Amino acid sequence: MSKNKQTAITPIREENYAEWYQQVIKAADLAENSDVRGCMVIKPWGYAIWENIQKALDAMFRETGHRNAYFPIFIPKSYFEKEAEHVEGFAKECAVVTHSKLEHDGKGGLKVAGELTEPYIVRPTSETIIGASFAKWVSSYRDLPLLINQWANIVRWEMRTRLFLRTAEFLWQEGHTVHESEAEAREETFKMLEVYARFAREYLALPVLTGTKTESEKFPGAVDTYCIEAMMQDKKALQSGTSHFLGQNFAKASQIKFQSRKGEVEYAWTTSWGVSTRLIGALIMAHSDDNGLVLPPRIAPSHVVIIPIYRSDEEHSQVMEFAERIKQTLKGLKLDDVMIWTELDDRDLTNSERNWYWVKKGIPLRIEIGPRDIAQNSCMVARRDKEPRDKTSVAIDALSAYVVQTLSEMQNNYYQKALDFRTDNTINIDDNKEFYRFFTPRNSEQPEIHGGFANSHWCGDSACEEKIKDDLKVSIRCIPFDAVEEPGKCICCGKYSQKRVIFAKAY
Amino acid sequence: MSKNKQTAITPIREENYAEWYQQVIKAADLAENSDVRGCMVIKPWGYAIWENIQKALDAMFRETGHRNAYFPIFIPKSYFEKEAEHVEGFAKECAVVTHSKLEHDGKGGLKVAGELTEPYIVRPTSETIIGASFAKWVSSYRDLPLLINQWANIVRWEMRTRLFLRTAEFLWQEGHTVHESEAEAREETFKMLEVYARFAREYLALPVLTGTKTESEKFPGAVDTYCIEAMMQDKKALQSGTSHFLGQNFAKASQIKFQSRKGEVEYAWTTSWGVSTRLIGALIMAHSDDNGLVLPPRIAPSHVVIIPIYRSDEEHSQVMEFAERIKQTLKGLKLDDVMIWTELDDRDLTNSERNWYWVKKGIPLRIEIGPRDIAQNSCMVARRDKEPRDKTSVAIDALSAYVVQTLSEMQNNYYQKALDFRTDNTINIDDNKEFYRFFTPRNSEQPEIHGGFANSHWCGDSACEEKIKDDLKVSIRCIPFDAVEEPGKCICCGKYSQKRVIFAKAY
Repeated sequence: MSKNKQTAITPIREENYAEWYQQVIKAADLAENSDVRGCMVIKPWGYAIWENIQKALDAMFRETGHRNAYFPIFIPKSYFEKEAEHVEGFAKECAVVTHSKLEHDGKGGLKVAGELTEPYIVRPTSETIIGASFAKWVSSYRDLPLLINQWANIVRWEMRTRLFLRTAEFLWQEGHTVHESEAEAREETFKMLEVYARFAREYLALPVLTGTKTESEKFPGAVDTYCIEAMMQDKKALQSGTSHFLGQNFAKASQIKFQSRKGEVEYAWTTSWGVSTRLIGALIMAHSDDNGLVLPPRIAPSHVVIIPIYRSDEEHSQVMEFAERIKQTLKGLKLDDVMIWTELDDRDLTNSERNWYWVKKGIPLRIEIGPRDIAQNSCMVARRDKEPRDKTSVAIDALSAYVVQTLSEMQNNYYQKALDFRTDNTINIDDNKEFYRFFTPRNSEQPEIHGGFANSHWCGDSACEEKIKDDLKVSIRCIPFDAVEEPGKCICCGKYSQKRVIFAKAY
Repeated sequence: MSKNKQTAITPIREENYAEWYQQVIKAADLAENSDVRGCMVIKPWGYAIWENIQKALDAMFRETGHRNAYFPIFIPKSYFEKEAEHVEGFAKECAVVTHSKLEHDGKGGLKVAGELTEPYIVRPTSETIIGASFAKWVSSYRDLPLLINQWANIVRWEMRTRLFLRTAEFLWQEGHTVHESEAEAREETFKMLEVYARFAREYLALPVLTGTKTESEKFPGAVDTYCIEAMMQDKKALQSGTSHFLGQNFAKASQIKFQSRKGEVEYAWTTSWGVSTRLIGALIMAHSDDNGLVLPPRIAPSHVVIIPIYRSDEEHSQVMEFAERIKQTLKGLKLDDVMIWTELDDRDLTNSERNWYWVKKGIPLRIEIGPRDIAQNSCMVARRDKEPRDKTSVAIDALSAYVVQTLSEMQNNYYQKALDFRTDNTINIDDNKEFYRFFTPRNSEQPEIHGGFANSHWCGDSACEEKIKDDLKVSIRCIPFDAVEEPGKCICCGKYSQKRVIFAKAY
């Protein structure tokens, strides 16, 4: 794309990807930073995307037998200390409640008062607080499996934050399940990862790699962590969801015990899994372009905008009547299980202003209607996946079919495009020098730009993983489930390796 | 009701209403106390009721033009201090975050560290934090009205807590709107109160009084607070929702200003309104009986349970096949806009155990199916609003119509019953002695039991309001919108009064 071409977003991706991301969010009015350290405000268009994510995932969780519940936001310090690795992972960045009131300080201000006997942590994740309930709920194998999900806000005192990708407070869901056997718990862990992968593919149009995290990248306290990883347009990886097999670690920490079929008291096996508002960041960075947000139709808050065009009051009422009729025609249409929504933008703005407004917001289809269209009983339709000025004339009689068909096509195209991009930027590398070159920036102005995903051999030694991280800021994103067993040499130390893993720079 | 009759809940309402309430929650498995001070765990059946409340209200908010968004959970102390009355109202009971990490204390434990330069309050309500965003979003009359809603968790450090009715953390929605004129803001305040009243009537089967709060009962910082008030079965009032006209108080505190149509910069007019998980408490206390939870069908998480009855393996497979077929028959049925859900309970429990399990959970209809029913192509249906052992034979061909019709009838009956109860227990009282007698306990074992709602004259003086509160623990619940102007004498001081107000004991 030429830099001279007019775009709605400045800078464009190839000029400054990080800043482009912020500008897309601003142009689509998705979210903004607040004055509260690291906390964001999610604005209506951004929140509507989150609601769609919730709706789709919630249905999938229900189908797989899970029920929603709600647990306290505060975790007593003593709970938090029960699992040693867990506390190490979260203690360094957490919000601690120490007082229960404010009092007048005698100088016209307020001071904290009512010190608590035990500090409370604002949940950074809920294994320990939910575990305390589960210990009460479970007493026999008959109570198992226990399959619970929670939609909640979470606080992690992150130092460097970025809208949606990393914020001090974020919204998420956390599944927590209890099982009578290791095998059943492991099966659940995989099943929910597959739910995430399917959701990413089918709704977000996001191809994801599924695999196992290395020891150093796994969830604090887990036995195994599995993940979905997606490639963004700057070729960096974004961890988009994780599913943890917790073994008996948290059952022991929280005393989740049950009488087994053999009549013995045993510790249960637990899992946890979550995705967050980070998915909105993934969505933006995977699909959006230099004109702003691009939304796969199955996750878009709205799908069609009708823009009436007129020059006189008489034309206005005529065009509006026609526009309302078209809106009615489109009402109730569905794209598979997703309702298709239509906006009518009659704001006192120019045609061009209204068009660009909706281009930047990523609405999939824009329909222009003027007096000439009424005469021909047709309308001009523009697609968000084409050039902004590209328009097709569609007869009103054929419009409903066109809308459903085109949205479906766009959904598939976005997925295919993202998949092709990942395929084009993932290569097998067996040579250490080539590996280092692959991850060395091409462009000094954008030090983050590099080759993409390297599929390379790794001996399994964390020292090699560490060295590559130190040298290149590149980490092992996952050991893919579909990695084939093949003898090779570690990309770092050259020692024997059994399989390839995915190396990438990551958010 | 005779005390000798067997009931599922002990104690029954007339023995100990407060304890009965806790036992209903336990028997229906709705929620439980956690080890975190004053915080509850909302269990799946209770949370599903909340999800239904959310779903119905959310649709009503959308219809009235509101959009959902999400704002930070933390409020900087300096924001909180901006509105003087507001901070007085909430500072005494709030969770204060003062630190951002935990460190090893050298004794095997953890200590708080990373003290913040400014303490953060966990939101007890969000006027000040949302106001900070609104100040940025609003600059012209063209940006108004701004109609926003937030679904969120809230923390108020309450000293005496009770499940759903009063908890340190609770879930709620808070609407926040900005308008260019006082008239428009006042209209919004009334409109949303009417949305609450309609929701209470149509979904919760809860008749509510609508009216204005007195000066002493209004929201800290509001100009006027309006409320919906419901009568519980112990004849106490429960404030079930409030809508506040905030005047320009919060606009001034947060600097929400706009350029008016006349080109002048003016402070905007704001409103806020909310309902919470407290509604679940209202639901329980208004309808439930001595056999447990009673759920109006339009808010019930599930509506029908099929209980297969059999004596042999052969009968089992035959009955299960028939039961599955009936479940399929009922699939997709709707009660107005509400989907009707059916459970199939094939657990290894006795017929009686399964029946009582669902009676206590308040499922509206129970369908028993045995070999004899199959032979007759019919089933036995029991209604939650009849005696537990009352059953009606219904032909399978007529079952769908019966289910929809009966659920609709039950919904109306519950409303009528609650309305009759309130009518029977609300009286006009003009005599001071009678008023005091009305609010004096009948039964020394249950000091809370009294006459109900007194519709009495009040002069408007807060001293009279205060005296009645001190003497009887009775407050003015509201000045009803439909109170007629009639000359009278204040029930307390005997001075001239223009209208009657509702006095009651309250939760």
